Amino acid sequence: MISFESDYTEGAHPAILRRLVETNLEQTPGYGLDRYSESAKERIRKEFGVPEADVFFLVGGTQTNSTVISSMLRDYEGVIAVETGHIGVHESGAVEYTGHKVLTLPPHEGKMSAEDLRAYLEAFYADGTYEHMVIPGMVYISFPTEFGTIYSKAELTALHEVCRAYSIPLFIDGARLGYGLMSEANDIAPKELPGLCDVFYVGGTKVGALFGEAVVFTHGNAPAHFFTTIKQHGALMAKGRMLGLQFDTLFTDGLYFEIARHADRMASLLKGIFLEKGYEIFIDSPTNQQFFVMSRQRASELHSKVRFEDWCPVDDSRIAVRFVTSWATKEENVLALKEIL
Amino acid sequence: MISFESDYTEGAHPAILRRLVETNLEQTPGYGLDRYSESAKERIRKEFGVPEADVFFLVGGTQTNSTVISSMLRDYEGVIAVETGHIGVHESGAVEYTGHKVLTLPPHEGKMSAEDLRAYLEAFYADGTYEHMVIPGMVYISFPTEFGTIYSKAELTALHEVCRAYSIPLFIDGARLGYGLMSEANDIAPKELPGLCDVFYVGGTKVGALFGEAVVFTHGNAPAHFFTTIKQHGALMAKGRMLGLQFDTLFTDGLYFEIARHADRMASLLKGIFLEKGYEIFIDSPTNQQFFVMSRQRASELHSKVRFEDWCPVDDSRIAVRFVTSWATKEENVLALKEIL
Amino acid sequence: MISFESDYTEGAHPAILRRLVETNLEQTPGYGLDRYSESAKERIRKEFGVPEADVFFLVGGTQTNSTVISSMLRDYEGVIAVETGHIGVHESGAVEYTGHKVLTLPPHEGKMSAEDLRAYLEAFYADGTYEHMVIPGMVYISFPTEFGTIYSKAELTALHEVCRAYSIPLFIDGARLGYGLMSEANDIAPKELPGLCDVFYVGGTKVGALFGEAVVFTHGNAPAHFFTTIKQHGALMAKGRMLGLQFDTLFTDGLYFEIARHADRMASLLKGIFLEKGYEIFIDSPTNQQFFVMSRQRASELHSKVRFEDWCPVDDSRIAVRFVTSWATKEENVLALKEIL
Amino acid sequence: MISFESDYTEGAHPAILRRLVETNLEQTPGYGLDRYSESAKERIRKEFGVPEADVFFLVGGTQTNSTVISSMLRDYEGVIAVETGHIGVHESGAVEYTGHKVLTLPPHEGKMSAEDLRAYLEAFYADGTYEHMVIPGMVYISFPTEFGTIYSKAELTALHEVCRAYSIPLFIDGARLGYGLMSEANDIAPKELPGLCDVFYVGGTKVGALFGEAVVFTHGNAPAHFFTTIKQHGALMAKGRMLGLQFDTLFTDGLYFEIARHADRMASLLKGIFLEKGYEIFIDSPTNQQFFVMSRQRASELHSKVRFEDWCPVDDSRIAVRFVTSWATKEENVLALKEIL
Repeated sequence: MISFESDYTEGAHPAILRRLVETNLEQTPGYGLDRYSESAKERIRKEFGVPEADVFFLVGGTQTNSTVISSMLRDYEGVIAVETGHIGVHESGAVEYTGHKVLTLPPHEGKMSAEDLRAYLEAFYADGTYEHMVIPGMVYISFPTEFGTIYSKAELTALHEVCRAYSIPLFIDGARLGYGLMSEANDIAPKELPGLCDVFYVGGTKVGALFGEAVVFTHGNAPAHFFTTIKQHGALMAKGRMLGLQFDTLFTDGLYFEIARHADRMASLLKGIFLEKGYEIFIDSPTNQQFFVMSRQRASELHSKVRFEDWCPVDDSRIAVRFVTSWATKEENVLALKEIL
Repeated sequence: MISFESDYTEGAHPAILRRLVETNLEQTPGYGLDRYSESAKERIRKEFGVPEADVFFLVGGTQTNSTVISSMLRDYEGVIAVETGHIGVHESGAVEYTGHKVLTLPPHEGKMSAEDLRAYLEAFYADGTYEHMVIPGMVYISFPTEFGTIYSKAELTALHEVCRAYSIPLFIDGARLGYGLMSEANDIAPKELPGLCDVFYVGGTKVGALFGEAVVFTHGNAPAHFFTTIKQHGALMAKGRMLGLQFDTLFTDGLYFEIARHADRMASLLKGIFLEKGYEIFIDSPTNQQFFVMSRQRASELHSKVRFEDWCPVDDSRIAVRFVTSWATKEENVLALKEIL
Repeated sequence: MISFESDYTEGAHPAILRRLVETNLEQTPGYGLDRYSESAKERIRKEFGVPEADVFFLVGGTQTNSTVISSMLRDYEGVIAVETGHIGVHESGAVEYTGHKVLTLPPHEGKMSAEDLRAYLEAFYADGTYEHMVIPGMVYISFPTEFGTIYSKAELTALHEVCRAYSIPLFIDGARLGYGLMSEANDIAPKELPGLCDVFYVGGTKVGALFGEAVVFTHGNAPAHFFTTIKQHGALMAKGRMLGLQFDTLFTDGLYFEIARHADRMASLLKGIFLEKGYEIFIDSPTNQQFFVMSRQRASELHSKVRFEDWCPVDDSRIAVRFVTSWATKEENVLALKEIL
Repeated sequence: MISFESDYTEGAHPAILRRLVETNLEQTPGYGLDRYSESAKERIRKEFGVPEADVFFLVGGTQTNSTVISSMLRDYEGVIAVETGHIGVHESGAVEYTGHKVLTLPPHEGKMSAEDLRAYLEAFYADGTYEHMVIPGMVYISFPTEFGTIYSKAELTALHEVCRAYSIPLFIDGARLGYGLMSEANDIAPKELPGLCDVFYVGGTKVGALFGEAVVFTHGNAPAHFFTTIKQHGALMAKGRMLGLQFDTLFTDGLYFEIARHADRMASLLKGIFLEKGYEIFIDSPTNQQFFVMSRQRASELHSKVRFEDWCPVDDSRIAVRFVTSWATKEENVLALKEIL
C-alpha cells in the first residue's frame, strides 16, 4: 500500500548507502575523529556560510534536543517553547528528565510570535516573585514547525531580536530543516539562517539519512566540553564516521537541498489534488507535511487504501489527517492519490 | 598502517550492508515496530533459549548502560560495579547524570568476586547508619570485562546467588558478549547465560554491526513503560528497523557467533606471537582484547609501524598496551606482526 | 504598620516556643528518632483517624512537594496539576529538577475538576502516540488552593475516584490545611480526609509553627526507604525533635484547629469589611486568604497604610490584591482596616 | 545517662532561644529578606574579614553540600573528595541525585593531600581519553574532617594553590567549623580562612543553633540566581528570619567562637582522661570529636553507662569508638567519665 505516513519510513538516499559500502572496511578512529566527519563539518560550515561554527553530529532528534538544551541551560533555567512544540509533547519528558522545565507560549499555526515572547519576558521580570519561578534561559522553535509551517525572515528576525535583548540563546530544531529551506514560501537563505539564531541542527533522519542530526553552534559558541556532554547523554557513536559519511554525502553537490526540494514539490502536488477534490486544509503548510480535514468515516475508508496518520479531532464528526512526503516519494504514487480520493 | 586499535574501527559485516541495501526503499513503521525488529527479537530469544524474554534495541553502549540501570533503580539506589567498570570510568558520568551513584568494589583482573560482593552487602546492612547511605540496588558486571577476562560458570553462578539472596538484579554489559561466549576458555553456553542474570545485552557495535545493542530482560522482567524510558533517554531510533535488520542478520545462521569466534582465534594467534617474541602478558585475556607489557621506548617505536593503544603505566619505564582483534581482522595482518615485533 | 501580607511573617504560636525552651537541654537522638517525634506522629494518626498511616516530618512546602512527588513517581511519569498549582509556578522548577514534568489542566478558581481529569486521562490513553509522551503518574492538588478555595466532599470524592480508576495516587498539598478544614464552608472532617487521597501533608509553617510539614501516607503506603529519600533531598533535620515538638504541641488539645479557626474567622470579618466598603471580590475564598479587586491607584494609596500583596492584573486599570490572616492576626487590626479603607 | 553521642542532641544555645522568644510576634518579610538576616550576614562578613562576600543561610549540612556543589558545577563536572568525605558516604547520594559524580582520593586521617590532588589532576589531563570521563570541577574538603582532624595553614594553602592552578573552586564543609577554628592545634585565623578557599560554610546545627548553615562565597562569587537555586532545592525557609536570628546571635560578641572553644576544651579534658586510663587513640583529633580504640567487650559494657557511638571495626576483637563534646557539654559530665572508665 502507498504510504504517506511519515518521512522516516524508508532507509537512506542510495548515494549514502553506496558510500557506506565503499568505505566499509576502512579503518578509522572512533567517536567522530575520522576524516569523513571532518569533511562533513567543513561542508556544512561552508554551505551555511559560517567558517567559525562548531559542528557536532548526534543520532536522533529527541536526543539532540535534550543534549543541546541541557548543555546551554544552567540548573535554574527553563526553555521556552510553544505548547505544540515537540520537546513539550512528544519526547517523553526528555528535557524535564535533565532537570529543566519547558515553559510554554500559545502557538500560532505551530509558531511562536515575537510579541508573545516579549510580553512573556516583560511580565516575568515585572513580577516581584520571579526569583521563585523558573528563569527563562533559552528559546526553542522548530523550522519547519510540527505543522509544517515556516517562519518568514521578518518573523525569525523579530524573535531573535527579543532573544538578544534578553541575552537568551535561540535554538532551532531543524529535524526537517531541508524541507523548510527549500519551500517555495521560504525567504530565508541557508547562509542567512545562522545569523538569525544561536544554534540549530540540520536534520538527517527525516531528510535522506539513515539517522543523524548535525548541530551547528553558529558563532563558535559550543558549550565547554560538549564532546563530554554528548558522551554523558549516551549520544556519542563509537563508529562516528557513520554520521560523518552520511552528512558528507548529503552536503556534496547540494544533495541535501535537492532531495528536500523534491519532497516539497511532491507535497505541493499532493495538496493540489486534495484541493481539487474539495478537501479542506487544516493548517496551510508549504512544506512536506500536509494537513487536511475530513469526516471520521472518510478517513476510516481511506485507511484501507493508503497509509497516513490521523492527527487530531476537529469536531465531533471530523478529524485532521496528515500526509507526508519525503526525498523518496515517487510522483506516480502522489498521482495515484487522485484515483483513491 | 595495520590497526589493532579497537573493535569499532571498521564498518559492518558485509552481510549487514547487503541487507540494508536490499531493503532500503521498503516502507516500514518507525520506532522498532517493523517486522525486521520483530524477527530479530525472535531470533535472539531463540538463540538464548528465553521465549519469554523482553528484547529491546538501543544504539550504543553507554546509552544502554545508563538507560537500563536507571530504569531498574529507584531514586535512592545505586549500582555496584568494580572500580575498573566501564560505567564508573569511561562513560562521562552518564549513570550519575541520571541521579545514581556507582558503588565500587575492587576488581580481580577486571572481575567482581562473589565474596567481595557478599561481604559488602553484609557490612552495609550491619551498619547502623545505612539509611544515610546509598542503598545498593543492582549489580553491574561486563562479560568479557574491560580487560578481556571472562567469568567462569561457577563464578557467575556465585555472583548471581548473592544477588538473589539480596533481591538485587544482576546486569551484564555484553558490549563484547560474542567474544566472551566464543572464547575457548568460556564454559557458559549462550542458553545458560540468561539463567545466570536478570538482564544482559548483546553488543552489536563491537561485534559486526554498524551500531546497536540488544537488551534482553531474561524473564519478562522489563521495567514498565521501557519504550517510553528509551525515548526519554533519547535512545529511540526513528528508523528502528536499522537495528532490527542488523540483529536479524547477525542472528541468522549463527553469524554473530561465527565472526566472534574468528576474532578470538585471531587474538589467540596474536598472543602466541607476542609470547614467542618474549613479551610479558599484562592481564591474561582469552578474548579479543590482548594486553602486554613493554618499555615505553619500545611502545613508542611500535606506534610508527602498527596502531594500538597505550593502556596504562606499569612502572616508571614500562606500560601496558592493548591490541584488539575483531570480526574484520585478517590473519595476514596478524602474521605481519611477526615481522614488526 | 499592620500587615496582612502573608501567614508566615510571624514566629510560632507561643505554646510552641514555650515547649522548645522547656526541653532545650534534653539530649535526644537525632533525625526524628526521638520521643517527641514519635508522640507527634501518634497524635496526628489519631486526629486523622488513620492508625496505620506513615507519618514523616519535613521542613518546608517546596521541599515536601518535590520529595513526595519524586518518591512516588517512576522516572517516566509526570504529575498532573492545575496551571495555577504551586508546584508548577512558584517552586523554581523543583519538581522538574527531580526529572519530572508537571502536566497541567485548567484551574476552576484554583481547583481541578474531576471531569477535566477524566477527559485528560481518557484522551491520553486514546492517543496512539502516548508512549512518546509523559505518562501521568500522580495527581497534585492543594487544599485550600493557591486562591483560598476548597474542594467540597463531593468534588474531592469525584477526583479520587478518577485517580483510583487509573491507579494514580492523589496527593494533597496541605500547606494551609488547617485553614481549609476549619472553614465554615468546608464539609470534610479531618477523619474523612485520609480516605479521599493517598498522601497529604499538614502544613505547620503557615499554621502556627516556626517551620515544618507533616506528611501522611494514609494507608501505610510510604515509598520504600522514604527516610533515605528525605536525606537524599537534603530534607532531613539533624535535630529532628524540633519538628516533633512543634507538631506534638499543635496536635495537643486541638491547638492546630483552634488557631486555624481563628484565622478563618478573622478572614471572614475582613471580607465583610471589604464588602461593606463596596469592594469587589476577585475570587470568593472561604479561608484565610482573601482576594479583592481595586484600581491600581487605590492599591497604591493603601500600600502606604497597610501591608498586603498585589496579586495579578485584572484589566488595564485594576488589579487583584491579597489580604491574609493567620493564627496571629489580632481582631483589633482587622477592625482598624475599616478606618483605612 | 550522660551522652557524648553527637553534637546535635541538644537544642540551641539559650541566648538563641531567648532571641526567638523576644522577637516572636514581630512581622517581617519572608525568605530571608528580613533585617535580622541582613544583620547576621553583615556580622559574618565582618568576623571573617570579607566585606564583599555573598552570604546565604540554609537549613542543614547535606542540603547545603548538594546545593552549593551542584550550583558551582556544570553538568559534565564532578567534585573531588576523599573517600571518607561526608558527601560520598553519609548523604544518601545527594550529590549524585543532582547529577554529579563524587571523584575520590585516599584520605590521610580524613584529609586530602595537595600532592594527591595534583597527581590526580596531572594524570587526568595526561590521559588521552579524559573527555570520556567526568571532568573534575570542584574540590570538597571538610574542616574539621569527619575524624576531627584539621588542616594546617600550610596544608590548606597547598591545596588551594593546586585548585587555583587548575581553576577549580575549593569548597570547605564547615559543619563543625567553630570547633576547628578554636582548636589549640589550629593556626588559621578566621580572617585568613576566606583567602584559602572559594566558598565555605559556618555550621550552626552542630555549633549552638537549632539548625542552620551560613554559606560564604568568599569573593562575591555566588553563582547567578543562587536564591532561585536554593528554592529549587527545597532549601529556602519561608520564615527565613529564624536563620538570621540564630546567626545574628551566634556572631554577637563572639558567642560562636566562645562556645566552640568550650567544646574543644571539654574534648581535650576527655582525651586526657582516656589516655590516663590507658586507652589507645584511634585518630588523634584536636577538636570536639575524639576517637579511641577498645575491645568490643569493653565498648559493650560502657554502653550501659554512657552514650557514645561505635565508629568502625579495628580488628577482630577491637573497635574504634567516638565521643563528642559540644557547646552544651558540662565539665562535671566529662569528669564523671573518670569513674565510668
